[in-house]
Amino acid sequence: MNASEVAPSRIAVRLAERSYDVVVGRGLIEQASSWEGLRLGADGMVVTNPVVGAHHLDKLRAVLSRRHRRLHVVELPDGEQHKDWPTLQRIFDTLLQAGCDRRTVVYALGGGVIGDMAGFAAACYMRGIGYVQIPTTLLAQVDSSVGGKTAINHAMGKNMIGAFHQPLRVLCDVDLLGTLPEREFRSGLAEVIKYGPIWDWTFFEWLELHADALLAREPGTLITAIRRSCEIKADVVGRDERESDLRAILNFGHTFAHAIEAGLGYGTWLHGEAVGSGMVLAADLSARMGRIEWSIAQRIRNLVARCWLPVEAPALGVERWLELMRMDKKAQAGEIQFVLLDKPGGAGLQTAPDAMIGEVLAHNSAVA
Amino acid sequence: MNASEVAPSRIAVRLAERSYDVVVGRGLIEQASSWEGLRLGADGMVVTNPVVGAHHLDKLRAVLSRRHRRLHVVELPDGEQHKDWPTLQRIFDTLLQAGCDRRTVVYALGGGVIGDMAGFAAACYMRGIGYVQIPTTLLAQVDSSVGGKTAINHAMGKNMIGAFHQPLRVLCDVDLLGTLPEREFRSGLAEVIKYGPIWDWTFFEWLELHADALLAREPGTLITAIRRSCEIKADVVGRDERESDLRAILNFGHTFAHAIEAGLGYGTWLHGEAVGSGMVLAADLSARMGRIEWSIAQRIRNLVARCWLPVEAPALGVERWLELMRMDKKAQAGEIQFVLLDKPGGAGLQTAPDAMIGEVLAHNSAVA
Repeated sequence: MNASEVAPSRIAVRLAERSYDVVVGRGLIEQASSWEGLRLGADGMVVTNPVVGAHHLDKLRAVLSRRHRRLHVVELPDGEQHKDWPTLQRIFDTLLQAGCDRRTVVYALGGGVIGDMAGFAAACYMRGIGYVQIPTTLLAQVDSSVGGKTAINHAMGKNMIGAFHQPLRVLCDVDLLGTLPEREFRSGLAEVIKYGPIWDWTFFEWLELHADALLAREPGTLITAIRRSCEIKADVVGRDERESDLRAILNFGHTFAHAIEAGLGYGTWLHGEAVGSGMVLAADLSARMGRIEWSIAQRIRNLVARCWLPVEAPALGVERWLELMRMDKKAQAGEIQFVLLDKPGGAGLQTAPDAMIGEVLAHNSAVA
Repeated sequence: MNASEVAPSRIAVRLAERSYDVVVGRGLIEQASSWEGLRLGADGMVVTNPVVGAHHLDKLRAVLSRRHRRLHVVELPDGEQHKDWPTLQRIFDTLLQAGCDRRTVVYALGGGVIGDMAGFAAACYMRGIGYVQIPTTLLAQVDSSVGGKTAINHAMGKNMIGAFHQPLRVLCDVDLLGTLPEREFRSGLAEVIKYGPIWDWTFFEWLELHADALLAREPGTLITAIRRSCEIKADVVGRDERESDLRAILNFGHTFAHAIEAGLGYGTWLHGEAVGSGMVLAADLSARMGRIEWSIAQRIRNLVARCWLPVEAPALGVERWLELMRMDKKAQAGEIQFVLLDKPGGAGLQTAPDAMIGEVLAHNSAVA
């Protein structure tokens, strides 16, 4: 299969005047249709990092240089530890030094960190300019690049300072995933798996059948998985852009995951690894609360394990777990809000007794 | 007249699910009706500065302590030079240290700087929490507190980093203006005058008749002037929240004013002083372009002068003027967009030949 064989899929994120398309396919950067209808200012600015830039920047630069009178590039240092204000400031400095006006378009070429920072910079520069997401990791393609959540970290918490700012378009090019390290690829699969239990059990069953092809990065399988993930995310975000309620279900497993990441120190486990373990815990809690059959929780655990993601949570101690989870952004007045499954393919927010959380952790931790 | 004599006016800013009221009156902080229907989280946070806080904080704290389980206060240093990221960070630090969740309400008690910073912090904290504006300067009451523009400054430009984030309510209490220094009060009058030429010439004529009572801060006259200013601003913002086009007319005189402020160094002239001079220049340019009668420009100049605001622009040199104005946020690909009058009570965006801008400056500058 090459780029010309299959037409890219377009998924509409319906948000009135902020609507946009997510395009999924191969060789998207080179295809004219990827860029059609996009806003065009005199200035364009690519935000990337040296690792991603080495692989894909030349190709993107060639295309964008023909679209903008001036094309600027900012390379930010790679890694979550740079998702902070001083690094963000480098984007603002470059925009202002170049005299970029309100019609400037920012292009985020990279994973979740680049997308979050470029998006937040676009949200704030002159109170909002347009940006395009070109995610280069599986996790960003199926999750963080769609839906307009942007943020930087604060010393006291991840993603605490941010904005809802929808992109003008998202280009999910599976060819960009070819250079992704294996551990990062598997981490991205956690966010793919997530969509099944919360929204579409048929998709979960499809994933059970195609896990091997997916792990082998078979392009057709990958496109189907990414497209369905983006469709579900677009559907949820279109109904609840600002996470009044429904959108929170996209955080299935994430209340536990955020505690794992903060408890072990960010970067010890990759985000998707923490989400894998978090989903196992959330499914266990859902079954323990009598909301789903135990067999469903077991199947979720099995699929997580097949994708080489951790199913055993780290032993942080119950008190520390609870303390960390009470700092979650979804917590209200200190009450932890879990995303629990109602049924295979359906979820909602709910609190749980501390004792039951303790049981869940005791049954699923590396050390009892 | 005391607080109980006249019921406060409520002006609706109509922005679908982001609609809110601007309340104009006396003794608003103490009146229960000012707070009715406002969102209530466990935590409330007042953002103010030591100067304003000394006058009004105790009164506000007494009321809010009964509304929130925990009330936090952040005092920021006074002055435009602190409208930056490190100072903003103090708000985030306090919110996070106190464990404030998404239902927290921020109260901005102060002038434009406090309102802009508290509003921008509320826009970004956990991607957006609610805030209430309690403006304590005339300028903030009639302009900056209404309409949801929030921002901080960047070393390379004022208000370059910001967000549109509408408040939950604006309380314009004229009693808070009693302690305002004379120069700041007059500066605020520039933004009141502005609304006449761009939207409502009858209001301009009313201001001509009541300038003396206004300068004497006669409460009834002040309330009428503030109410009409807020009505016009609400009307314009309701039609064009994000400054696609129409909203830009609120920047009448501001293209010149921003150049004055940047050219002389921020704080040399107060914002309203620069706007006074800027309106004289913009009215002259409008007449010179044949869009309005010279007599209209003359009347604008006269009212600006009667309010003790400068009518002569500083001599920056034409080249420097043009250079500064090309850095304006409204500029597009280096073309300066002026707000020019079409008629008494109407305005639109337009470019102007450099030579004509030169003539305007030559005829209205302190030194030829």
